[in-house]
Amino acid sequence: MNERELINWIRQQGGTDSEGILVGPGDDCAVLASGDGVLLVTVDQVLAGVHVDIARAGGRAAGRKAMARNLSDIAAMAGVPFVAVASVTLPKGDEALGCEIYAGLREAAEAFGCPIVGGDVATWDNPLTVSVTVLGKMPAGREPILRSGARAGDAICVTGALGRSWQSGRDLTFTPRLAEAAELVSRATPSAMIDLSDGLARDLRHLCDASGTGAHLQAGAIPLAPGADLAGALGDGEDYELLFTLPRAEAEAVAATGLAGTPVTILGEMTTATELLMTDSTGTGPLPETGWEHRT
Amino acid sequence: MNERELINWIRQQGGTDSEGILVGPGDDCAVLASGDGVLLVTVDQVLAGVHVDIARAGGRAAGRKAMARNLSDIAAMAGVPFVAVASVTLPKGDEALGCEIYAGLREAAEAFGCPIVGGDVATWDNPLTVSVTVLGKMPAGREPILRSGARAGDAICVTGALGRSWQSGRDLTFTPRLAEAAELVSRATPSAMIDLSDGLARDLRHLCDASGTGAHLQAGAIPLAPGADLAGALGDGEDYELLFTLPRAEAEAVAATGLAGTPVTILGEMTTATELLMTDSTGTGPLPETGWEHRT
Repeated sequence: MNERELINWIRQQGGTDSEGILVGPGDDCAVLASGDGVLLVTVDQVLAGVHVDIARAGGRAAGRKAMARNLSDIAAMAGVPFVAVASVTLPKGDEALGCEIYAGLREAAEAFGCPIVGGDVATWDNPLTVSVTVLGKMPAGREPILRSGARAGDAICVTGALGRSWQSGRDLTFTPRLAEAAELVSRATPSAMIDLSDGLARDLRHLCDASGTGAHLQAGAIPLAPGADLAGALGDGEDYELLFTLPRAEAEAVAATGLAGTPVTILGEMTTATELLMTDSTGTGPLPETGWEHRT
Repeated sequence: MNERELINWIRQQGGTDSEGILVGPGDDCAVLASGDGVLLVTVDQVLAGVHVDIARAGGRAAGRKAMARNLSDIAAMAGVPFVAVASVTLPKGDEALGCEIYAGLREAAEAFGCPIVGGDVATWDNPLTVSVTVLGKMPAGREPILRSGARAGDAICVTGALGRSWQSGRDLTFTPRLAEAAELVSRATPSAMIDLSDGLARDLRHLCDASGTGAHLQAGAIPLAPGADLAGALGDGEDYELLFTLPRAEAEAVAATGLAGTPVTILGEMTTATELLMTDSTGTGPLPETGWEHRT
């Protein structure tokens, strides 16, 4: 059983049909009924040697990344950050790293109005781990955008440009697309949304699986980050851009202006089939099942 | 800077005066305004080799402990568990351990009505980590019991018996005192409460510091777990019992019956001084500053 199979096994365990749980495991955030509104909850971790090279990045960037990954999950629901908690495990003798991690966590949290309200710190004889949980809310009158609402015929859009995130260091400096998501739901009616962490090919598969649709991409439309090629845009991962679906006319309006200063590109459309196809200059075929696996 | 100094430094950073945050870092849980009620949030982790010996305990017990530690924090506010999320880091090649961890997390969560609504799993070449965040609610009309409300003259009470938790394996099998806390607030008006994780001496100090009081313990009154001595009861830690303060007459009523089948003992009383004193057969002196540090 590998990591992915284990995650799938856990999701199949069910048992979250309790009162107050509107969406359980399997979307970017869980969605809970809370008082007169809903609450979003997401958790994500950053491990030294897996998600961040501490020697290269430093503690502050590692902390920033740990927070920003979670904020990206809130963005993927079109939510608004509320508060965060963090647990940090520090290599014994390197407690100063804790201050850097906290500074980075807080820098990202404050930039997006998400105060850190609690945490746990422990030391051990192993590398750094940072686990962050972020709670979010929805703006009044808005529903969270799930992965499962895409319809055949919807256009597929993405913010920003894809590929080479890790190599370029963009995995450490990316901006969670909260402002973009907020503008999107104010201007259009997205049917489904996900943030790109595993790579376009894998994350589009997640969105199609959740929605019961297929998809057809135009290779030439995929926006490439500087130095990236198509394979990297499909599979490198850690882009932390938003992938969303919406009616074609809305997509054209959004792509014409971008969102909150970030370009938006139409990549293709959702289909009634269940397969993922891509058309390039040589013809149409299955979308390569590439995707990004963490390095260790 | 050691672990404790780092935690204190983080708490001093402040910056949690935002709207909706009723209690920030420093209590058993953060307290948030949420719709028409309050939300409790706590995070705690279990690390292989620090908080659990996996070879001795197995994955299921480790998962159970990770969840139960957080439920104990909810109990310390007299809250009710709502939902949990967990992030797990598994040694590469030991993904089967993930199933055991999840089973343990879920066993404890289900026993206390706290479904797991999300998580993150990663693998790496280092030992197991399990970080759990639990959200709680307050029963209608109840306020969370903070550490800061104790008054001079209040009696000091504890549930259960203390000491030798780690040596006896009670750290793996303890029952979060949720039922005891619920009965307590239905029958009495506790002024302050904390769960005992660092040992009676340290945790009483936390409670006194938060309340601006001192305390005076009667050594002979401290309930000792089987095989434990006074030093162990003061300093071993990981008891996960509730330490609380309340008016003397209420304390006597509660001690006479126990709470939810668990014995309650009066240990002493809160004072106007700021020091912590203990009286034993040889006289009265400062409470030993012993306390439990994790093993690595």
